[in-house]
Amino acid sequence: MMRTRPLKVALLGCGVVGSEVARIMTTHADDLAARIGAPVELAGVAVRRPAKVRAGIDPALVTTDATALVKRGDIDVVVEVIGGIEPARTLIATAFEHGASVVSANKALLAQDGAALHAAAGEHGRDLYYEAAVAGAIPLIRPLRESLAGDKVNRVLGIVNGTTNFILDKMDSTGAGYQEALDEATALGYAEADPTADVEGFDAAAKAAILAGIAFHTRVRLDDVYREGMTEVTAADFASAKEMGCTIKLLAICERAADGASVTARVHPAMIPLSHPLASVRGAYNAVFVESDAAGQLMFYGPGAGGSPTASAVLGDLVAVCRNRLNGTTGPGESAYAALPVSPMGDVVTRYHISLDVADKPGVLAQVATVFAEHGVSIDTVRQQGKDGEASLVVVTHRASDAALTGTVEALRSLDTVRGVASIMRVEGE
Amino acid sequence: MMRTRPLKVALLGCGVVGSEVARIMTTHADDLAARIGAPVELAGVAVRRPAKVRAGIDPALVTTDATALVKRGDIDVVVEVIGGIEPARTLIATAFEHGASVVSANKALLAQDGAALHAAAGEHGRDLYYEAAVAGAIPLIRPLRESLAGDKVNRVLGIVNGTTNFILDKMDSTGAGYQEALDEATALGYAEADPTADVEGFDAAAKAAILAGIAFHTRVRLDDVYREGMTEVTAADFASAKEMGCTIKLLAICERAADGASVTARVHPAMIPLSHPLASVRGAYNAVFVESDAAGQLMFYGPGAGGSPTASAVLGDLVAVCRNRLNGTTGPGESAYAALPVSPMGDVVTRYHISLDVADKPGVLAQVATVFAEHGVSIDTVRQQGKDGEASLVVVTHRASDAALTGTVEALRSLDTVRGVASIMRVEGE
Repeated sequence: MMRTRPLKVALLGCGVVGSEVARIMTTHADDLAARIGAPVELAGVAVRRPAKVRAGIDPALVTTDATALVKRGDIDVVVEVIGGIEPARTLIATAFEHGASVVSANKALLAQDGAALHAAAGEHGRDLYYEAAVAGAIPLIRPLRESLAGDKVNRVLGIVNGTTNFILDKMDSTGAGYQEALDEATALGYAEADPTADVEGFDAAAKAAILAGIAFHTRVRLDDVYREGMTEVTAADFASAKEMGCTIKLLAICERAADGASVTARVHPAMIPLSHPLASVRGAYNAVFVESDAAGQLMFYGPGAGGSPTASAVLGDLVAVCRNRLNGTTGPGESAYAALPVSPMGDVVTRYHISLDVADKPGVLAQVATVFAEHGVSIDTVRQQGKDGEASLVVVTHRASDAALTGTVEALRSLDTVRGVASIMRVEGE
Repeated sequence: MMRTRPLKVALLGCGVVGSEVARIMTTHADDLAARIGAPVELAGVAVRRPAKVRAGIDPALVTTDATALVKRGDIDVVVEVIGGIEPARTLIATAFEHGASVVSANKALLAQDGAALHAAAGEHGRDLYYEAAVAGAIPLIRPLRESLAGDKVNRVLGIVNGTTNFILDKMDSTGAGYQEALDEATALGYAEADPTADVEGFDAAAKAAILAGIAFHTRVRLDDVYREGMTEVTAADFASAKEMGCTIKLLAICERAADGASVTARVHPAMIPLSHPLASVRGAYNAVFVESDAAGQLMFYGPGAGGSPTASAVLGDLVAVCRNRLNGTTGPGESAYAALPVSPMGDVVTRYHISLDVADKPGVLAQVATVFAEHGVSIDTVRQQGKDGEASLVVVTHRASDAALTGTVEALRSLDTVRGVASIMRVEGE
């Protein structure tokens, strides 16, 4: 039975994602109404530049006063696709105070202030949904929060940033250097004019914080996530990776410690074997592996960004939130009951690929091997290459803690025979 | 705030899946309680053979009288993992009548009587959830029903039966024939003693019906699904597939017609390019592609069967259904408002790979090509091989309707120069 009074939606932001949300709300109005059980109406659109032409949006709905829009009192759902911390944070808080539920695509805000926003939603008996904040169209938040609610997730491992995957894929397939690949990504619109948030891993770290929080029922903030960008990955690193049957991806990795008593979350470039499904994720696509006790290994793959894919995720949330309003209920809120400690990077255990520039003389390998042994880092393979009095040593270790590896590298740097540490790269997915 | 009265769960069936559900309910009781907001208690377990030892289950809970258990009146959720049509259907109906919600893993029943079961659930204000009925642990029902609720799904294409994928993968990788690969699957426990439901495509067809219904908001019954098993796939077919850069998979394909006005659902073996992600799905794994207007291409991958993975899906539903009960609400029920007609197989449009045994004499190719042209089926490539007065023609067509192809093949059979049609295989995923 269809209710006739429409649910009113306020759209904050009308860029690439927002305009697509508005378009689909109009063109698919009948389907949305049938799926929700009531029509949904776009009641207002807050933008910064009202003069910009927005095809298909009634100019009478457009306002520059976002605060007044969320304070109207008759808004059922606020869709926030502005991004960034402010004014989004204040607008969302105001929306809850005035009785609206919120659908957001704002990873930075959720990673920084998710707990406070969830608390505000709960206090006012409203929903806060944000499937679009992680991996665009790929259903990930809902599967982790609901489908796996009866399971124990042990690891989330994924490519969650399309820009950096495009750049790394380009470097891998063409042999290009970082700058050349970045320039192409910029020219094609895959990278922004200021690519810092992507290439330095801030975007991926925000997503890792959100995923870890949901997967482990524990609050994980952006500050808890170890972050290393991919600007220093070189063509030589890709050559080294190829020799090992690997490629290089910027990975977000959220893990429960072996004893189950703590968790870690990190973002960094890493070598992964070509046989790993993540190795064949091309271009700007995203893919996330989830490992749990009962389900085993699951993978979710799809477009990680873009107006339409992100709008698909926003609208899925919008339908769910509207249904909840009609039922007078709310969906699952924050689940942080496990409250596991988030361990520092030093506690992370993985394998390492280290390239050293060393003096080409007898005894160097023995010296280096001794340093690894003294720090409890077991060596898997060593490859030695010499030319013109200089030599390089490539060491691949067994699993060791990041702290032990860091201590090893410091000690190596102090050896006279080690001229430099050319690169250190983690090896994952084995 | 935790409610202290526990929610009571009746488990119908305690085989591979049921015993794992019971085990996890016990070992993860605290986590489940925290995630639901109230403890869940296993209130009874209905089995056929009570004498069988069931580790970890209180013998006092075990009964052979499933009907009495669901009629007790204090059961909040019935978990049905018996399978088959009866007595599961009557037990589920009885459960709703006595106020319980239902979580089921029963694809055969859902595909046959989903509409009636949903109606019964709705009538009594209870939930019917069945994530475990399709593709085991892989979240698929919830993403289709909820995450993509604001999008328009155009196609679902997947490997949804692990047994047949194991057999086909074995044939592909070892060159084994069907019987040999089936024998190995049986020996390893991947195939049942009577493999009919799997190898004849009944299991996959049930899943296709369920997926098509949800994806297209339309009732699709098992009878609406075209079904062709994979018992006639030969080593020669795999050799032909390899020559085309393809492999062979048993696919479930649910499609919206190009004009959007009708849908089709089918299960059959098909060639797919090795470059397609489904081509590299190995062993008993499942994977499903979903294509929609806004999200684009999504893929979901994971273990499609087995006790633990299926239990993971059952428990995810159990948590959701319990939360709904605590909130006094229900989740989304059946959505069949679109009520699109389900077109017959003749309307399906795809490409075909046809092997013909023909007389090795001049003019045969011209005759054959004329027959294709007369039926409006355009030829992409032809390969002709002759030996000892016999020859074979391998024809790959452009896209054509199944009806046109069927007419073509009938006419070919009536040609004197065509000794036989060695194989017809659809080509998908291009």
